[in-house]
Amino acid sequence: MNALDTLVAELARLPGIGRKTAQRLVYHLLHHGPERFTSLAGALEAVRDHVQPCGECGQPTEGETCGICSDPRRDRGLVCVVEESSAVGVIERSGAFRGHYVVLGGRLSPLEGIGPDSLRLGLLERRLDTGEVREVILATNSSLEGEATATWLQQQLARRNGVRVSRLARGMPVGGDLEYVDGVTVTHALTAREELR
Amino acid sequence: MNALDTLVAELARLPGIGRKTAQRLVYHLLHHGPERFTSLAGALEAVRDHVQPCGECGQPTEGETCGICSDPRRDRGLVCVVEESSAVGVIERSGAFRGHYVVLGGRLSPLEGIGPDSLRLGLLERRLDTGEVREVILATNSSLEGEATATWLQQQLARRNGVRVSRLARGMPVGGDLEYVDGVTVTHALTAREELR
Repeated sequence: MNALDTLVAELARLPGIGRKTAQRLVYHLLHHGPERFTSLAGALEAVRDHVQPCGECGQPTEGETCGICSDPRRDRGLVCVVEESSAVGVIERSGAFRGHYVVLGGRLSPLEGIGPDSLRLGLLERRLDTGEVREVILATNSSLEGEATATWLQQQLARRNGVRVSRLARGMPVGGDLEYVDGVTVTHALTAREELR
Repeated sequence: MNALDTLVAELARLPGIGRKTAQRLVYHLLHHGPERFTSLAGALEAVRDHVQPCGECGQPTEGETCGICSDPRRDRGLVCVVEESSAVGVIERSGAFRGHYVVLGGRLSPLEGIGPDSLRLGLLERRLDTGEVREVILATNSSLEGEATATWLQQQLARRNGVRVSRLARGMPVGGDLEYVDGVTVTHALTAREELR
């Protein structure tokens, strides 16, 4: 395979990028000259060489400990458990959470051979062992596997006395149109309806 | 700016990739381990180091001359002029053309300061000087600037005796729904309507 085809194939391995889009990206880079190849390759190598999981929460960071874990103003009593580090960004942008995170790095999936050993449960254990944690918020995705992971974690956490376990509320997305919301979500939204007074 | 933000910014410079998509791509790569960074960076560097414009037609290639220009079975009497090398792929996939190409590397755009000097007109001149060319097919895009480039080229080529100049037919896209075709295209399709007999 020649260099162009290799690059197209390499880009097409990325999610949401098909062969045609990959080709368009390569033509774009070629059009803009060699320095674009250098800067993108350099940025990739910098992340490969300098970014590793934070020793406390597991999200990718450049130092030993990420900015969230090393921020003394954040509440160490609240731990939010997410599947992937992308979820940390989503929750941080909401501005509604000032606690800490644990990034599992996946969710239980027997079909894909992902058991508890594949997840970063050690980080969660270590947090709990400090005795500082008052509440664990299970913020795994609302998929079948995310729900199964949350249920499994809930059972594991039941052994810990004095630690509340909660789950993100499920219901209508704010600004969401009822017409475009699936039946399971509507069922949740109905079951967990909030009384107005 | 840290390594992660730099990579996100670098990816977000690509067309059709916004900040959010760029972040998703970076998380995807992080999830799949360091070898993905290495292979993508390597593929970028290989293209940067080994790919240059073909000396005869201008499309990116690894050797001196691209596979199309060095193919003796192709008709040197037919030259198809396109704006970008991406168009070569589109025409090649149609299988309807067995001649040669000249890739201009852009289109005339006075607003962006792109004049004739910025295009690879030398390649076209050199082709014509061989005396082998019977017909030049102007296949610049059907945009305002693409049309202006075609018109300008047509005037330049008028000086060349014995060289036919043609333009890609304009009309309804095959399989296209009249409802989704713009007015200018419909006008062309009506004006250039083909009689059925």
